[in-house]
Amino acid sequence: MYGSTAVDVLAGRAEHRRMATAEAVRSVQFDRADPRAVRRAIRAGTHLGQTAGLAPGRVQGNVCILPREYADDFFVYCQRNPRPCPLLAASDPGDPALPALGADLDIRTDVPSYRVFRDGEYVEDVADIRDLWRGDLVAFVLGCSFSFEEALIEAGLPLRHIAEGKGVPMYLTSIETAPAGPFRGGMVVSMRPFTPADAIRAVQITTRFPSVHGAPVHIGKPELLGIADLGAPWVGDPTRVRDDELPVFWACGVTPQSAVRHARPPLCITHTPGHMLVTDLKNASLAVL
Amino acid sequence: MYGSTAVDVLAGRAEHRRMATAEAVRSVQFDRADPRAVRRAIRAGTHLGQTAGLAPGRVQGNVCILPREYADDFFVYCQRNPRPCPLLAASDPGDPALPALGADLDIRTDVPSYRVFRDGEYVEDVADIRDLWRGDLVAFVLGCSFSFEEALIEAGLPLRHIAEGKGVPMYLTSIETAPAGPFRGGMVVSMRPFTPADAIRAVQITTRFPSVHGAPVHIGKPELLGIADLGAPWVGDPTRVRDDELPVFWACGVTPQSAVRHARPPLCITHTPGHMLVTDLKNASLAVL
Repeated sequence: MYGSTAVDVLAGRAEHRRMATAEAVRSVQFDRADPRAVRRAIRAGTHLGQTAGLAPGRVQGNVCILPREYADDFFVYCQRNPRPCPLLAASDPGDPALPALGADLDIRTDVPSYRVFRDGEYVEDVADIRDLWRGDLVAFVLGCSFSFEEALIEAGLPLRHIAEGKGVPMYLTSIETAPAGPFRGGMVVSMRPFTPADAIRAVQITTRFPSVHGAPVHIGKPELLGIADLGAPWVGDPTRVRDDELPVFWACGVTPQSAVRHARPPLCITHTPGHMLVTDLKNASLAVL
Repeated sequence: MYGSTAVDVLAGRAEHRRMATAEAVRSVQFDRADPRAVRRAIRAGTHLGQTAGLAPGRVQGNVCILPREYADDFFVYCQRNPRPCPLLAASDPGDPALPALGADLDIRTDVPSYRVFRDGEYVEDVADIRDLWRGDLVAFVLGCSFSFEEALIEAGLPLRHIAEGKGVPMYLTSIETAPAGPFRGGMVVSMRPFTPADAIRAVQITTRFPSVHGAPVHIGKPELLGIADLGAPWVGDPTRVRDDELPVFWACGVTPQSAVRHARPPLCITHTPGHMLVTDLKNASLAVL
């Protein structure tokens, strides 16, 4: 999605569907509750699909891999924009390990689908990046809304996009992120509709999880974010907002993709949306209270 | 306001103004930061006015005094409706002391203005109730929004009704409280306008203070509460809500007054709105985190 438009994203989604079909053929049995077993299945190429629902209770992460010459600025960008870019871990240059997230974890093989961008333009989705790995690459892993969605579900709050089997709608907003080097651009937000009482509960629950986007950044007035039409998300599927509901907006881990579009690094590798890095970290361990 | 309409309340407000004038004449110097000095001034009749701004950092309470035969049901009513009726303390029958709120506190003299209701009908405002006190009366003290407003102000959130020198607007809603004996009726809510980002902060801050109404009960859609016109509050002054703001609603300590209107006890004595009981308790001591 880097350097891409929603059209590229839709192309990517069609690509997902082809891969999901392939997945149905290739999937074999593995312990879907065990993050190590999930990563092994992904590493072996026996799971290429989305990761929602795998390893319940464990943190899944957004991935962004950049050449070292861009990494320092990206570090600063994350530090300046902790709501959309909550940095969970970063590798040493050239080292594909991220031991803080899993002793065996290898960032070159453990994501079910990678998205490759060159000079900010989308090139292709690939199942592993061993061929692309270089000694100067730094892997960043950012928190993802799956963690707080789990907490919302446990609290009994309905998530419409999940109930309807859709992707959460994401919007590029007029909220400018704090720039760092070449990284800049609008904050991307995800939207979930809730009744007002549930919206208040959702603020309380997600406040407990600052390292996975935390509390909402906005409630109720999409026009103030420069969102002209809730029915036309930048990424993801439109989600109905009933008359007795408010749209609730969280900072989204897709924001760095907007920033990388501006930075146009010669190489950037991310996860394919929905195809996250499954870690050993427990979601509950991220709660600050 | 028990058994009363907004008209009675407006009459009461005119009464306030007369009393405020009297107050300007009669006020003498006292240490306005010391809750004991404030109560002594009130007890001596040298302060008859509103209590906003007195004894900063200390809890001020809503007062409701009922005959013993109504007290048990009122206890249950508070237990079933903790958001609008957060009970801080209750006296023993006939005992005007509330040592948990102040060693010297005497509920017969320490409120600057009392409101007397008979059979649910407003009778008069009086400066003390020593003549009305009886061996069967039980005094209830409920948390008040002054405590959480202080926390909001400390966090830098603007409170428009204070900036404009007005009373916070309160509305009788279609949210039915959980009945107990003869006590029942709609929840009363107070409204403060905030930008969406500040509304989210306000949820976080007031969540820390469950014993003074806690988090909002509603955001954004007054029509869902049966409020037809924000410009026509049941009590208090209309407050402007800008286009870039959401109305945020908290359960209000005036709710028991709506319940007492239904119960019609032979005698009920409350504080006059804005003329609260100043206690020694620190607001900060009520924060649960």
